[in-house]
This record gives sequence, C-alpha cells and structure tokens, in this order.
Amino acid sequence: MELWFTEKQTEHFGITARIKRTLHTEQTEFQKLDMVETEEFGNMLILDGMVMTTQKDEFVYHEMVAHVPLFTHPNPENVLVVGGGDGGVIREVLKHPSVKKATLVEIDGKVIEYSKKYLPEIAGKLDDPRVEVKVDDGFMHIAQSENEYDVIMVDSTEPVGPAVNLFTKGFYAGIAKALKEDGIFVAQTDNPWFKADLIRTVQRDVREIFPITRLYIANIPTYPSGMWTFTMGSKKYDPLAVSDARFHDIDTKYYTKELHKACFVLPKFVADLVK
Amino acid sequence: MELWFTEKQTEHFGITARIKRTLHTEQTEFQKLDMVETEEFGNMLILDGMVMTTQKDEFVYHEMVAHVPLFTHPNPENVLVVGGGDGGVIREVLKHPSVKKATLVEIDGKVIEYSKKYLPEIAGKLDDPRVEVKVDDGFMHIAQSENEYDVIMVDSTEPVGPAVNLFTKGFYAGIAKALKEDGIFVAQTDNPWFKADLIRTVQRDVREIFPITRLYIANIPTYPSGMWTFTMGSKKYDPLAVSDARFHDIDTKYYTKELHKACFVLPKFVADLVK
Repeated sequence: MELWFTEKQTEHFGITARIKRTLHTEQTEFQKLDMVETEEFGNMLILDGMVMTTQKDEFVYHEMVAHVPLFTHPNPENVLVVGGGDGGVIREVLKHPSVKKATLVEIDGKVIEYSKKYLPEIAGKLDDPRVEVKVDDGFMHIAQSENEYDVIMVDSTEPVGPAVNLFTKGFYAGIAKALKEDGIFVAQTDNPWFKADLIRTVQRDVREIFPITRLYIANIPTYPSGMWTFTMGSKKYDPLAVSDARFHDIDTKYYTKELHKACFVLPKFVADLVK
Repeated sequence: MELWFTEKQTEHFGITARIKRTLHTEQTEFQKLDMVETEEFGNMLILDGMVMTTQKDEFVYHEMVAHVPLFTHPNPENVLVVGGGDGGVIREVLKHPSVKKATLVEIDGKVIEYSKKYLPEIAGKLDDPRVEVKVDDGFMHIAQSENEYDVIMVDSTEPVGPAVNLFTKGFYAGIAKALKEDGIFVAQTDNPWFKADLIRTVQRDVREIFPITRLYIANIPTYPSGMWTFTMGSKKYDPLAVSDARFHDIDTKYYTKELHKACFVLPKFVADLVK
C-alpha cells in the first residue's frame, strides 16, 4: 500500500508527498496538527492540512525570516518571534551574537511539544538560556508591549484559523508600538501566484505605518508556487542600504550577504503588486 | 466527477492539478503528448507525463531563457532555439529588434502542431517571417553548424527520452562550434533540490568548453521545486558585466533589467553546487 498526503494549495492545484508513516495526529485547541514522515522531505509538520515545515527545506524559510532583518538592524538585542512554535526562526536568531534575548510567543503549545519531539534539529534551540517561550496569543502579547523590541518576526500560518488577526492593520500598528524607535518587523506574506491580493493589502497597510516597507522573496519547494514573500516594515534602517561591513560570518544554507540584497529584486509581476 | 492530473516530479513527490478536460492525447514518434485544460493554469502541455508549459506561468521560463542571453550579447542577429516546439522562446526572441533570423529546430512536429492549436498566444509567432521552423534532430543540426549563430538556446525536456543527447559534453562542444566567436548559449538545467548532480555535471562540462560559465535561476510554479536553473556558456560576454545602456524597453512579466543580474545571485546551497 502507498500512502500519499495531498495538500490542495488552491481549490484546483496541490502537492502530493509519499508518507512512510504518521507520527502524530491531533485536534489541538486551535487547529488540526499532523506530523508525518515523508520519503522526500523527511519529517513534515502539517497544520490544518497545510505544510508548515519539513526537515529537508525548512532552512530556507527560517533563515530568510531571521537574517534579513537581523543583518539590517545594526545591533539587534531583543527579538520577538510571533508564532513559529517549531523553533526554526529562534534557532537562526540565536546565530547573531548581539541577541541577548529572544522571546517566542506561540499560541499552540502542542506545536512546540511535537516539534521538539519530531523536529529536534529545528526546535532544539528553544531550550537555550537566551530564549523565553510563552504559550500565549501573539496578538495580545503585541498589544501589551511598548517600545520593547529591536526586531519582531511574524512566523504565522496562513490568514485562516488562529492567524487571522495577524494579517490586520491593527496588528501592524501594534507591532510598530511594540518596537523600539528604530525597530524592524518581518512577516511571511504568502505567494504572488495565488495570493496577489493578500500581498497587495499587506503592503498597503504596512506602508501606512512604517516609513520603509519592502517585499522580498525566497524559494520554498513545499509552499504554494515555490515562491514565498516576506514583508518588512522598518522605522529607520533600509535593508538595501546595509554596508558590507555589517555582515559577519554565519552558518547558513540559503542566506548569503549577496542574497540579502538580491532577494529584494522582484520579478516584474511581483514588483507590480507592491507599486 | 473530479479529474486530477498528477505528475510525480520525483519518485515520492509531485504536483496535482484539476483538469476540466483533455484536449488531445497521442503517442507521437518520440513521446507521449497530452494537452489538457486545467482549472488553475489554463491549457497545459504535458510530454511523457511531465508538465512542459502552461498558459498561466509560461512567461517565466520563456522570458528567462531568451532575454538573459539576448541582453548579454551586444548585437544578436542570428538565433537558434533547439527544442522549444511550443514557440514560447521564439516569441520572446522576436522582441529583440536586432534579431534578423530565429531558427527553431524541434524534433517532434506534433508539439508544434498542437501548441499552435491549443496554445496560440505562446506559439503564435512561429509564423513570423523572421522565423524558420525545422522539424529535425537538434543534436544533428548542431553537429552540422559552424560559426553561424550569435545565441543558441536549448529548450529541451528533461534528460530522458528524446533529450538525452542534449545533456552531453559532446553536445556542448558542438554548440561552441556552431556559435560565432563571441557567441552565447543557454540551456535549461532542471532544479537544485532534486537534480543537484545534473547541475553539477553540466556546469563542469560547460566550464571545460566556455570561458564564461554561469548559472541563473527563476521561479516556475509548475516545475519541480518551483526553482529552475539555466546554465549559460559564453565565449566573450559576461552577463554580469552588461552595462545599463544595453537594455532597451521590452514587454515582459518576469524579466527586468535589475533581475538580469539578481537572477545570478544564488542561494548558498545552489552556489555550492557550481563551485
């Protein structure tokens, strides 16, 4: 018997991956959580039927969420990750020696629990002494924070289910308040092939709040279309103006200092979305 | 009833697309040809079970094969496309006013026939007076050409079936001979996630023949991993040294003059393949 997991990434298109076995399946308080072992991508975390991360390609997303803002900020010390219960962004954040504290606010404790169990090379740094893990509502955490963080990363699911609030203008305004006066935030904002309207809306909303708003891209094979976008809002620092001296050596598989700028060079149809 | 077409892009991973109807299916002299109408990507050409092109995303591949070498060469007049029977690369080539003649050598006349019928906005320029269409073996055509072309583009299928010869060192040597002394060639060379060895081998082979060898990338949602690579071999002109003055206005949806250089900035794991 062959077992195949299929994610309909749109109503009419999807990916399909052969499964060795199901490691865990559970309806948590917030979402359906499945952890499976795939033949092609190793262990795979699936929330509400959507691939969140896999052992084979996780490095792209986690590196690109973390390093682009962290190399843009001259001295990031206090970092917040909203969502990201698998711990991959935290792992990348900790590669920056300037970081003194990294806070993870994940609404679903089960994501953390099963990532630690089945994705240890992703979640392993959640126990680092510089990390504080809070199982809490990211929206509320942001609402209660003021002038606190150098960099905030929003590592959310799609804007369905528990993450709906994380794609609102009110949330971005809250992030601006939670950031210090020279703070930077980044959020994953889906793909331009199937979710053009979402990207357009987020860009418009962020631009009304942050003086510097940028979109950058990365290739993630298990995400819809293979092209993922990240929206950055920055109060002071422009990611395109980072001097070469800022970059320090860092162990990565996707991010490079050359890509730091090249990832902002968008295909024309994507650039047109954010004009 | 729902009809879904699934392409196993690897033994254990694939894409699946909902089909409105099958437009044509035939075992040609060379390969299995299917033309289907999909819900998500419009009409789709499938050869030997592999997606070749779709109405929705075809522009990426065709623009990136054509414009990167054509803007690198200062005066491309005589251009050869090997394969590419759908006509998409030819359509892009003809956007360059310097081009006096574009020759298409496609081994399978059925690909041309059914592309004209079902992908008219892609194949429509095959009847342009500047175009010569030859239904012939590209490998043999190259072997018989000498000092003739400014730019050669290899728009082949994967290295199985009729395209096997088009991924050999002997073929690249033939291309070098068929090019003028300042000629450039580009070939599609699959993706770095599942075909790392192929990219490594082609780079090594091309580097032994061409003084300037480069790899560049583009995002194609219906191709494996969504990240596609193109290998360029050039006798004289470096695509990274093209001056801004070289670029003229051109109607594109993916390619831009900024992307002309940014597409050569590779993610670290891809850059490592071509070291």
